[in-house]
Amino acid sequence: MNKNSSNTMALAPNPSNKRETVCIFGTGDFGRALGHKMIQSGYPVVYGSRSTQISNLIPKDAEVLGHAEAAQKAAIIIIAIQRQHYNFLTPLAEVLRGKVLVDISNNLKLNQYPESNAEHLAQLLPGSKVVKAFNTVSAWALQSGTLDASRQVFVCGDDVEAKQMVMNIVRALGLTPLDKGSLLAAQEIENYPLQLFPMWKFPIFLSLGLTAFFFFYCVALDIIYTYIYENNDFSFFIAITIPNRVCPVMALILLALVYLPGIFAAIIQLYRGTKYRRFPDWLDKWMLCRKQLGLIALAFASLHVVFTLVTPMRAFASWRTGKGIISQVLNNKTEPLDHTNAWLSDSYLALGILGFFLFVLLGITSLPSVSNNVNWREFRFVQSKLGYLALILCTAHTLVYGGKWFLSPSAYKWYLPNIYILSLIVPCAVLVVKFVLIFPCVDKPLTQIRQGWERNPKYSN
Amino acid sequence: MNKNSSNTMALAPNPSNKRETVCIFGTGDFGRALGHKMIQSGYPVVYGSRSTQISNLIPKDAEVLGHAEAAQKAAIIIIAIQRQHYNFLTPLAEVLRGKVLVDISNNLKLNQYPESNAEHLAQLLPGSKVVKAFNTVSAWALQSGTLDASRQVFVCGDDVEAKQMVMNIVRALGLTPLDKGSLLAAQEIENYPLQLFPMWKFPIFLSLGLTAFFFFYCVALDIIYTYIYENNDFSFFIAITIPNRVCPVMALILLALVYLPGIFAAIIQLYRGTKYRRFPDWLDKWMLCRKQLGLIALAFASLHVVFTLVTPMRAFASWRTGKGIISQVLNNKTEPLDHTNAWLSDSYLALGILGFFLFVLLGITSLPSVSNNVNWREFRFVQSKLGYLALILCTAHTLVYGGKWFLSPSAYKWYLPNIYILSLIVPCAVLVVKFVLIFPCVDKPLTQIRQGWERNPKYSN
Amino acid sequence: MNKNSSNTMALAPNPSNKRETVCIFGTGDFGRALGHKMIQSGYPVVYGSRSTQISNLIPKDAEVLGHAEAAQKAAIIIIAIQRQHYNFLTPLAEVLRGKVLVDISNNLKLNQYPESNAEHLAQLLPGSKVVKAFNTVSAWALQSGTLDASRQVFVCGDDVEAKQMVMNIVRALGLTPLDKGSLLAAQEIENYPLQLFPMWKFPIFLSLGLTAFFFFYCVALDIIYTYIYENNDFSFFIAITIPNRVCPVMALILLALVYLPGIFAAIIQLYRGTKYRRFPDWLDKWMLCRKQLGLIALAFASLHVVFTLVTPMRAFASWRTGKGIISQVLNNKTEPLDHTNAWLSDSYLALGILGFFLFVLLGITSLPSVSNNVNWREFRFVQSKLGYLALILCTAHTLVYGGKWFLSPSAYKWYLPNIYILSLIVPCAVLVVKFVLIFPCVDKPLTQIRQGWERNPKYSN
Repeated sequence: MNKNSSNTMALAPNPSNKRETVCIFGTGDFGRALGHKMIQSGYPVVYGSRSTQISNLIPKDAEVLGHAEAAQKAAIIIIAIQRQHYNFLTPLAEVLRGKVLVDISNNLKLNQYPESNAEHLAQLLPGSKVVKAFNTVSAWALQSGTLDASRQVFVCGDDVEAKQMVMNIVRALGLTPLDKGSLLAAQEIENYPLQLFPMWKFPIFLSLGLTAFFFFYCVALDIIYTYIYENNDFSFFIAITIPNRVCPVMALILLALVYLPGIFAAIIQLYRGTKYRRFPDWLDKWMLCRKQLGLIALAFASLHVVFTLVTPMRAFASWRTGKGIISQVLNNKTEPLDHTNAWLSDSYLALGILGFFLFVLLGITSLPSVSNNVNWREFRFVQSKLGYLALILCTAHTLVYGGKWFLSPSAYKWYLPNIYILSLIVPCAVLVVKFVLIFPCVDKPLTQIRQGWERNPKYSN
Repeated sequence: MNKNSSNTMALAPNPSNKRETVCIFGTGDFGRALGHKMIQSGYPVVYGSRSTQISNLIPKDAEVLGHAEAAQKAAIIIIAIQRQHYNFLTPLAEVLRGKVLVDISNNLKLNQYPESNAEHLAQLLPGSKVVKAFNTVSAWALQSGTLDASRQVFVCGDDVEAKQMVMNIVRALGLTPLDKGSLLAAQEIENYPLQLFPMWKFPIFLSLGLTAFFFFYCVALDIIYTYIYENNDFSFFIAITIPNRVCPVMALILLALVYLPGIFAAIIQLYRGTKYRRFPDWLDKWMLCRKQLGLIALAFASLHVVFTLVTPMRAFASWRTGKGIISQVLNNKTEPLDHTNAWLSDSYLALGILGFFLFVLLGITSLPSVSNNVNWREFRFVQSKLGYLALILCTAHTLVYGGKWFLSPSAYKWYLPNIYILSLIVPCAVLVVKFVLIFPCVDKPLTQIRQGWERNPKYSN
Repeated sequence: MNKNSSNTMALAPNPSNKRETVCIFGTGDFGRALGHKMIQSGYPVVYGSRSTQISNLIPKDAEVLGHAEAAQKAAIIIIAIQRQHYNFLTPLAEVLRGKVLVDISNNLKLNQYPESNAEHLAQLLPGSKVVKAFNTVSAWALQSGTLDASRQVFVCGDDVEAKQMVMNIVRALGLTPLDKGSLLAAQEIENYPLQLFPMWKFPIFLSLGLTAFFFFYCVALDIIYTYIYENNDFSFFIAITIPNRVCPVMALILLALVYLPGIFAAIIQLYRGTKYRRFPDWLDKWMLCRKQLGLIALAFASLHVVFTLVTPMRAFASWRTGKGIISQVLNNKTEPLDHTNAWLSDSYLALGILGFFLFVLLGITSLPSVSNNVNWREFRFVQSKLGYLALILCTAHTLVYGGKWFLSPSAYKWYLPNIYILSLIVPCAVLVVKFVLIFPCVDKPLTQIRQGWERNPKYSN
């Protein structure tokens, strides 16, 4: 649906020769990949290297000189060497005075050193203008030209003009610079490429654990129990029937877990009488991953919808339909329409559809480009009002569907409650407490606290 | 699917002590929330306050001084007081000369004052550099650290360097500054947080009204009429059958309403012979909310799809299927495949699927991040060409499905036309007029007018 | 889901009179549209024109003067004339010295001139500060105020202050400026509005061709063959049955084609022993359109899902169900549940659902706003790991579903293989080769090569 015009540029390098010379210190993989790309984009490149022995690895249009000579040829020097070798730059301090040094280094783990590599470089060479850039781009992608992931290059530095020069180079290579401010941001920029979905870890492990638990719970009750006591082999339930029991349960529980920390926060604030004390750490972390919990809940809900919709296509379903009709024929009677049944089946379907619809709306609103276009008032309206409405509809959907099992003794195989009953505990608790919280006698002090009022001002210090 | 690296930062405040001191005038809720956050991010904060009595509400690492002394300690002063008290700043004009004043105030309603608060402040203190910022962020969110909505902070101001300093603070707090230009933009920035989906209001009220009308129309014809004259209780139709009649009707009418203003605009331009006169106000407003109308139409279409797909799961549907088969069995004859029926049922399904597919494509293209990546030519290709194709397919889908009712007298209960017939009026009118408009003898003058040609140039003055 | 606050502004022009005068050279369509819009936004506008004859076309609040006089009134001059008439500006060089000239011109085809229009203008008038802007906005949209597509205005220029002035005007008109760097970017900016989905062309033609081939292949085998040899008229299969055979085949083949170039690249690198030589041109181009291939595959997969889900609503399907049940009744026997069949039908459905789920995840991740929020490591995890998992699941889905046809002679009508067998060739080949490539003895040298190691360093020069 979108295309990037720079893609075509990548294939047709700009023949312009007006670009200023760029110097690269270091002939490692990233240094060479960047040099290749810069030459393609029309920059004269000169490498600074200890020896010219390995020059055959270097792009053929580039010059290779000693460090000092190379540095003198350019206003911008890209430091493509590792942090532990930065010390060798100190003798060059005089040559590098006033030059723009681009730190492109990455570390092997998060917060490896007390200060960022770029700040370390700036301390070693106080006369130079250090800019952090390019570390978020992969050498392999730069080389192969297939930059189909993010083209954003985070840039930071204390000198505005130096930053501008580096951002121009970034643009010329077909990438998008993103100014992250002063060199203090370097630590964050250096940590960025090392992350692997940090905010998703807890929600994903939680849902994997719960899914496994509910899956085996269902296997025990629906397949093993039936096999032992009714001697029926329903092992094929593993493919669709049981996943379609686990998915809605997971979706409902995770959706309730999105709203549970807000309930806890309100209770804690009411109890403390102030909003100016930090929440416990676990609550802070929980609140920060609510969006992720919600999106995983949406994924389970979507799977539930598709699993449900394929039902008529299953061999088991058509066999069961046929069996029902044939037994009616053989008994020579036509059953009249059961109105209660028609009402129940239609209402739980309608409730589920509307709940899922609101759920998808919440998901769309949490897309970065959409949430950037709504203000706080709008965001809270959607995520809080519509979110609670979705939770109410989904809980009602489950209640209407599974309600008949609550009192039926056949739902308690091995004295264990049916999975539907388990799934309703958290959402019902959230809805009941939320219902209490919107009573005026509770809501009024809470609103005051959130507007800055404090019951016991002495606590705030 | 995305995560924000700043989330983790929020929990681990940067210990760096290189930040410059920030002064905050005012110890209200937002002033304290901002102070807390700044101290967390490593900024020394000094509050300017009339008295030091209320200092126990203030974050404990902050200093509290008189206004003049506090202002002297910092280059940036955040004015966290309300507009009506700005006058007390005039005596401080000398102290504030050359300082950066950050106006973070909001109003209670849109365009409350003739000029924006920030411009008012700049007029009061012409020697200071006023920057508008932070007003779009909620104090509660800032305090609790759960910035899961937009992290964008709109910044505007006439002094580029002052703006840069404020944007650095914004970045250090883990937010994203967005430069909105000179202080003239302050009015818009102050109005922004007060809005609640301004462009959505008319489309939503329109569709709620139409939905209610069609719903009761269907209830009257399908439930009440049947109950009175056929003595059948189909009250459970309210849950699924009737919503699934209203949704497609709404989707089709709203989709046609997206293209109707374009038709009106073309007719007006042809009649006037120029494009250089403004359209009537209602047409301007209508054209501006076409995207919203289209997205609501897409929502109705999606609901229609899901309501249709759950049909086989309904108790009513399986009862009806069984009844049909049993009656065939009892009559001891097997009906052969009705080829006309097979053709009709398959074509309206296929037309609907393709129409919905294009409709979803249009919806995806209107996501902000996608529409930012297509140029005008591409956008018009998708929204105009593919949009009309979607309208044609959906109208054909309805015609093939509901066609049989046009001539059947049973479709005119109480002499009222069936809802399908009503739904086709607007889309058919749009398609017929559009068909006339693409005839060369009409298209050519219209194209000329849109390229700037005028039939009666005297009108343009 | 989002709204743009500037929409409302467009209707209520800012009454402020603080804006600086803007001069527009040329009274063509775009010059007039821009002038109208600027006057609406509070800018005094003066037109520079050869004669004042045509002044009645010009907005009535604008002044019209000769070129030299008009230029003297403003610091910013918008050059709304065509490139071939730029020469007439050279006599005005003295008047234009130090002024900001905004080049808004577009060409009729890509790379029409060796250098961009803006660079040409800068060469003609070396004393002026040339800024490229506004060329990506349509005059018609500017006039009608319905800027519902991208509001982005690409701006580039060598003088930072001049660029800042132009960006302020862009913002004041309710548009979003995007700094593209120095004037060297003008060529790209001028090419931008001429493109019509350049990266989509090859994938779309490829899929149209393949779709047509498979469609006629199916028509021949399923309709014509059946008509000739079994005398059955299944012509209505054209609407749903056959599209629902072609769509999954296309989805699977295109998904495999997304991963095939990566396989080729690995083989070429292993053979050459270096990553520092360019891939053949076809491979480069193929790799650049992988995202588009994947999204088209996703579109086919979605159509397949919907086509499959409507099956129970088809007249043909309910006729076939009824026929099956009636034949059981007439034979007076109830068939027991076929467990193998239940397992097969449930597993291919479950495999398809999970494969499609992952496929949709990949699609969401390729939305620009989402892919901008993930780093390289995360992007490769999703697109490579999850992508291959989706390919494995979809191939397994097809194998389980179509497996029975491999050995059945009835699948080879006219000695041609069934379409399912054809669809499995590419995906199976990709999966087998990929399986070989992850063996340590192959993976290790490949990883080394991608980290910059070279087998025969002499090749790199």
